[in-house]
Amino acid sequence: MNALGRHVLAEVYGCSFEILNDIDRVEEIMVQAALKAGAEVREVVFHKFSPQGVSGVVVISESHLAIHTWPELGYAAVDVFTCGERVNPWDACNYMKEMFEAEHVEAREVTRGIIEPPQRTAVNI
Amino acid sequence: MNALGRHVLAEVYGCSFEILNDIDRVEEIMVQAALKAGAEVREVVFHKFSPQGVSGVVVISESHLAIHTWPELGYAAVDVFTCGERVNPWDACNYMKEMFEAEHVEAREVTRGIIEPPQRTAVNI
Repeated sequence: MNALGRHVLAEVYGCSFEILNDIDRVEEIMVQAALKAGAEVREVVFHKFSPQGVSGVVVISESHLAIHTWPELGYAAVDVFTCGERVNPWDACNYMKEMFEAEHVEAREVTRGIIEPPQRTAVNI
Repeated sequence: MNALGRHVLAEVYGCSFEILNDIDRVEEIMVQAALKAGAEVREVVFHKFSPQGVSGVVVISESHLAIHTWPELGYAAVDVFTCGERVNPWDACNYMKEMFEAEHVEAREVTRGIIEPPQRTAVNI
């Protein structure tokens, strides 16, 4: 068995309203998180909601980083999906925790894409 | 306790190379999956890799749909994150399974953003 990717889902609590509601700041942190983890950024898209909240995604060569913020609750839902051995999704998560000045993070890692190896055929020799 | 969102992670196996490697087709399926589930599409970004593979995200008012495809393995990693009661992430997943002509899907739902209610203060009266 071989897994294609690692997907970290992080509940980020206790952040400041101002940071979570600032689309430019959130985008900057997410892009920097990708770069700090050694990922290659391909596409960036962020959206500001009214009256508050930001959603956005950084598509990387190794998959993606996504965030949705609830500034009024001091909460952000983050997920970081990476494939390959080179980029560690936890590096991005740890950077985000620091930059969002989070009081508390609960995160779990989910293995993605379990591919079975080709069946070996028994041969009489 | 109150959960803000539902995040479905789906391993989509046994799809055709052609569909998974066609960026326009993958984007169309993902956008339609969002709409079929009743979501409001805000941003759409897709990227084609060389020699094969597509990554993309549909940002919706209710969070996001993301996909990464490995056409050579017939595999796509999909995740659908929705907040609120109105949109059911499984509706989007079921539509995608059908449109990608998947042989087999393994999916799990993760509850996101558990927010504790305000603490009640005991008062002596």
